[in-house]
Amino acid sequence: MKLAVDAMGGDRAPQVIVEGALSAVQTWKDLEIVLVGDEQRIQPFLKAGHSRIHIRHTKEWITAEDEPVKSIRRKKEASMVLCGEMVKNGEAEALISAGNTGALMATALLIVGRMAGIERPALASILPTLAGKSVMLLDSGANMDASPQHLLDYAEMGYLYMNRVQHIDKPRIGLLNVGTEAAKGNQLTKQAYPLLEASDRIRFVGNIEARDLVSGEVDVVVCDGFIGNVVLKFYEGIGSGLLRELKSTFLANWRTKLGALLVKQEFKRMQKKFDYAEYGGAPMLGIEGICIKAHGSSNARAIHNAIGQAYECVKGNVVETIRELKHMGDDEPK
Amino acid sequence: MKLAVDAMGGDRAPQVIVEGALSAVQTWKDLEIVLVGDEQRIQPFLKAGHSRIHIRHTKEWITAEDEPVKSIRRKKEASMVLCGEMVKNGEAEALISAGNTGALMATALLIVGRMAGIERPALASILPTLAGKSVMLLDSGANMDASPQHLLDYAEMGYLYMNRVQHIDKPRIGLLNVGTEAAKGNQLTKQAYPLLEASDRIRFVGNIEARDLVSGEVDVVVCDGFIGNVVLKFYEGIGSGLLRELKSTFLANWRTKLGALLVKQEFKRMQKKFDYAEYGGAPMLGIEGICIKAHGSSNARAIHNAIGQAYECVKGNVVETIRELKHMGDDEPK
Repeated sequence: MKLAVDAMGGDRAPQVIVEGALSAVQTWKDLEIVLVGDEQRIQPFLKAGHSRIHIRHTKEWITAEDEPVKSIRRKKEASMVLCGEMVKNGEAEALISAGNTGALMATALLIVGRMAGIERPALASILPTLAGKSVMLLDSGANMDASPQHLLDYAEMGYLYMNRVQHIDKPRIGLLNVGTEAAKGNQLTKQAYPLLEASDRIRFVGNIEARDLVSGEVDVVVCDGFIGNVVLKFYEGIGSGLLRELKSTFLANWRTKLGALLVKQEFKRMQKKFDYAEYGGAPMLGIEGICIKAHGSSNARAIHNAIGQAYECVKGNVVETIRELKHMGDDEPK
Repeated sequence: MKLAVDAMGGDRAPQVIVEGALSAVQTWKDLEIVLVGDEQRIQPFLKAGHSRIHIRHTKEWITAEDEPVKSIRRKKEASMVLCGEMVKNGEAEALISAGNTGALMATALLIVGRMAGIERPALASILPTLAGKSVMLLDSGANMDASPQHLLDYAEMGYLYMNRVQHIDKPRIGLLNVGTEAAKGNQLTKQAYPLLEASDRIRFVGNIEARDLVSGEVDVVVCDGFIGNVVLKFYEGIGSGLLRELKSTFLANWRTKLGALLVKQEFKRMQKKFDYAEYGGAPMLGIEGICIKAHGSSNARAIHNAIGQAYECVKGNVVETIRELKHMGDDEPK
């Protein structure tokens, strides 16, 4: 299996990207990786190299500040764009990038291509929960406004993903809402609820409140991309904020420093539960190929896990399964 | 100044309500409180009583399970309903309740009454930030769907509230969004942005991302009531979840228990920063009277602070000021 990895995307590229790739080929023995980027900048981290890691050289890449759609149109040789083309042409089975999220969504949509039958592909973020397992939140920012039908598409794609990639038997799907009663919510959720309830392709467990998003009661949470993105950023903001707060509490004086020393080990274990690096990246679902967005501040372990996630997506035939789902839909009486 | 306090609302009523009232009349010397509720259940906590605390007896109250609009119509003698009528009739200058949120919003709207010119009153929650001060989030759940004009109303009301009650000079108003650029967001925020920017009655500082909600960069955040309620519940859910997680980390073994002992004092100080009890309740803005929703799980200190908040609202002429704002609007050329 050959995967295309954008070596130039993310805050710590190319170093952590190369290190993550090196570690990934150790873990998955039938994996080949094409690192797309500046050979001169990649090579120092690749050291002796690896027989299953190749470089596709380019001098262009997309930065965090680049305007998404414009940049992928103008920078024809950008590493992310080349990764997209490799997936489109069948040279690679998936692409992984820690670069500009908007540009990656544009690459997925405009270069790899939207799947027929899916009007709005969704960005599906995988979040840690207090229960120590992950929950998929989609759409987490691909489309700001959604229709009830879009939410149903998200639910069906999320269900298949969690089943095929995370091997969850009958994943539980929740609709993000302000209360658990069916009649609760805004226009969108009130209309989406009966559609989700009527679908026999998913296991809809009803509305869930935001507090249950982190309790691990469901496997997939669907919502429009505006609220999904707000919730995602809020989660990251609170998480990192509280962590900073705790750290400064531990550093207050000699007593607290000694206290910190005593709880260090258990505290690290708790932190690990919330470490995004353990959970892989965010797949774009509804695309004619696997596109994984790794976190911009990914370390090598996060890149390793995002590559592993792409590997599982390919093994689990995620794209084909979602495509079949939509064809099944075409045959059904309307 | 006379305030009506619903003695029967909240998880720990009437005990903490009575205790909060007793402590409030100690703090504010020109304050009289009418405790509305079951005299027999109130009296034991009132002990010797206080010359500025009165009881208005009733045998009826609204429970957390009651359907909001139905219950306030059917339970004519419910403590919360009587509080609303006292404000309506001028017998009290404000009402405070820790009871059923939906029923309190219905009481505010249908009994106290909506203010002319405000199409949609908003529930305004006061949240702690990492910076150690509070931020007002509105609408946090009164109206699920909002128009751009509603968001402008929220911004103007929030601005006046923070200025008059929290004495902030030129409070900074942010629009909750997925990015800081003006063109970001969904249909609603894209249309609301220019309205907010054009208003010379507020200090609009632009879009803010959810992560900055807790960083203390703005004083007021406006959004529709659906997303506001989701964010509010998410904040509470993560906060209490992480706290539980930390506590169990501290209890893991003898080493961590000793460590916990050493950081206890500083940890409590940090916790206090995030204690909703310190921040008062959520005022309903756009109502012809002061209505404060205290947290359902309020302790006596939270009730004391919610009463103090109502006191400041009356002193600050919040209702009159918002009413004048809308009249000013009527005179302006359209």
